[in-house]
Amino acid sequence: MRAAVYHGNRKLSIEDVPEPSPGKGQVKVRVSRNGICGTDLHEYYDGPIFIPQEPHPLTGKSMPVVMGHEFSGVVTEIGPQVVNVREGDHVVIEPIYRCGTCRACRAGHYNLCSVIGFHGLMADGGMAEYTVVPENQVHKLPDQVPLELGALVEPLSVAYHAATMGEVTSDSTALIYGAGPIGIGLWFALRSMGLTEIDVIEPSQTRRSSIEALGARTIDPTTQGVPALIADRTNGEGVDAAFDAAGVAPAVESALQCLAERRPLVSVAIYDKPLSTPLLQLVLRERRIQGTICYTSEDYRAVIRLMAEGHYNTTGWVDTVPLSTVFEQGFEALRAGRLMKVLVDPTR
Amino acid sequence: MRAAVYHGNRKLSIEDVPEPSPGKGQVKVRVSRNGICGTDLHEYYDGPIFIPQEPHPLTGKSMPVVMGHEFSGVVTEIGPQVVNVREGDHVVIEPIYRCGTCRACRAGHYNLCSVIGFHGLMADGGMAEYTVVPENQVHKLPDQVPLELGALVEPLSVAYHAATMGEVTSDSTALIYGAGPIGIGLWFALRSMGLTEIDVIEPSQTRRSSIEALGARTIDPTTQGVPALIADRTNGEGVDAAFDAAGVAPAVESALQCLAERRPLVSVAIYDKPLSTPLLQLVLRERRIQGTICYTSEDYRAVIRLMAEGHYNTTGWVDTVPLSTVFEQGFEALRAGRLMKVLVDPTR
Repeated sequence: MRAAVYHGNRKLSIEDVPEPSPGKGQVKVRVSRNGICGTDLHEYYDGPIFIPQEPHPLTGKSMPVVMGHEFSGVVTEIGPQVVNVREGDHVVIEPIYRCGTCRACRAGHYNLCSVIGFHGLMADGGMAEYTVVPENQVHKLPDQVPLELGALVEPLSVAYHAATMGEVTSDSTALIYGAGPIGIGLWFALRSMGLTEIDVIEPSQTRRSSIEALGARTIDPTTQGVPALIADRTNGEGVDAAFDAAGVAPAVESALQCLAERRPLVSVAIYDKPLSTPLLQLVLRERRIQGTICYTSEDYRAVIRLMAEGHYNTTGWVDTVPLSTVFEQGFEALRAGRLMKVLVDPTR
Repeated sequence: MRAAVYHGNRKLSIEDVPEPSPGKGQVKVRVSRNGICGTDLHEYYDGPIFIPQEPHPLTGKSMPVVMGHEFSGVVTEIGPQVVNVREGDHVVIEPIYRCGTCRACRAGHYNLCSVIGFHGLMADGGMAEYTVVPENQVHKLPDQVPLELGALVEPLSVAYHAATMGEVTSDSTALIYGAGPIGIGLWFALRSMGLTEIDVIEPSQTRRSSIEALGARTIDPTTQGVPALIADRTNGEGVDAAFDAAGVAPAVESALQCLAERRPLVSVAIYDKPLSTPLLQLVLRERRIQGTICYTSEDYRAVIRLMAEGHYNTTGWVDTVPLSTVFEQGFEALRAGRLMKVLVDPTR
């Protein structure tokens, strides 16, 4: 079968590799669509970062690996002792391997497992015609959720999990900094929680247009003073939650000025380096900055349910490219900002 | 009567001023001891910052003002309509004026009142023989709490309030960065909550010795790698709460490395300027930085009760100086680091 195999920094090749077989408790999936994540770009251009050079303690796998951790597909074979999954099921994969015994795992926060692994980084993943996953990584997709949408459950669960950290209710006001895929996911998640007063702050005209087309209200921070505008709009009281999906100092600075007292800035960004942060803004109004990463199965279940109820759509921000040209049409196009979210079709 | 009157930057004089009389709902207090706060130093050397140059909306008062917002004393006269306070009561003052109508006040968080005022900054305060306060600022001191200790309720309530923001239980582990008066107050507060595993990180030998004399365990960050030491001690799991009472970048950086996942760094420092902050440390382990400031009456009541139960003492870190030499023996000694906490005796 064909697969995109990572051999190290800037070394990704489309190769013929043996088709995997499901072992005990495993499920073989024919991949329908696999999303390219920011993490994948980092691995390619700056890595290896997460892809292990020594065998990973949970998977035993090291480089080279088949990339891809955001994918949906159809079950084509089940291994011995698989109980809840059947051939023909439409599924999406929750790619986390966890130890199950560390403090975070014991508390149910396995997204923070101290030896965490990911399918598609620490095991052969979804940028291939087939992949084999443990049964506990499988979530079934209901009939109403097409496989193309299902491939987005992973990044949208990152955003959904972040939204839950904002401690909002339907009458809350919110700001989202950054209208990339995670910002879009935050907007869908907050809308599904009933919020109507959401502003998305995004300097790129292209990205503003994309999210506006979904129905969002946006602010261009290069032409409008965000804190003054928000103070005006909230009668000086500030917003109930802010979300940083941009990861740049001006966003953090602006968000901390816009927040109401005792409210959170939820940070779901990967900061390249320490930022100059006005911590006094936290102290004077008892605000907080709350970090958030990944998801657990609870978030996956919520997003799949919301998808079935029609809360998500892919209009205008998702493109599909063939596996054969994943580098040029996927990685390079994303890096150059020509596309926002790319799904790979491994059948082409 | 004699009073320390603030006339502007580096202008503080001991003057004879008229003795105030209690109006409706007010109480006249003969001041026993008045602590000098870091805020007072800032007003003197860098101010005016909080001391208003126009009449304050809640008190109508502007510069010049009698300084002093941390004080205890004895009630000598009550105005009309005072219900719960009597002549002769030993009292400590909770110096906050609040509007009562803003969102923070309505939620009970009047320490975040949008027009907040402080007795001793926005009204004539406790660095004087007498002062007059509204009845709702008065807390009675029980017999077991001497007036000298009572004068410390204000800063110790700042620390107690911060300790409550750490969401700790008696089996929690904690780090305190900085062993100044607020760091010491945090240590007392956490001990009173039952914590036994507390480390105080402080580079100054003098300050380490002071808090060690109270029974604290300390770490000198200039000779020991704090994150490695804490990782070793907690079996790699990190501590349940960290408190920044230092306000410097190395403390924030160290704390974020030492925290367990999903746990808070509580910040009770006044940061002069934005710090380089490794926000990625928040994201990767879902940690948070929680700001905290001042207190409400709940914190005052808790500290007074704990004082009555013997949880606090002033050995080795509190000095008393006469009002007549408050500048040389108080402000200058504090600024030079010769003393840690100074109470002013207005009768001398």
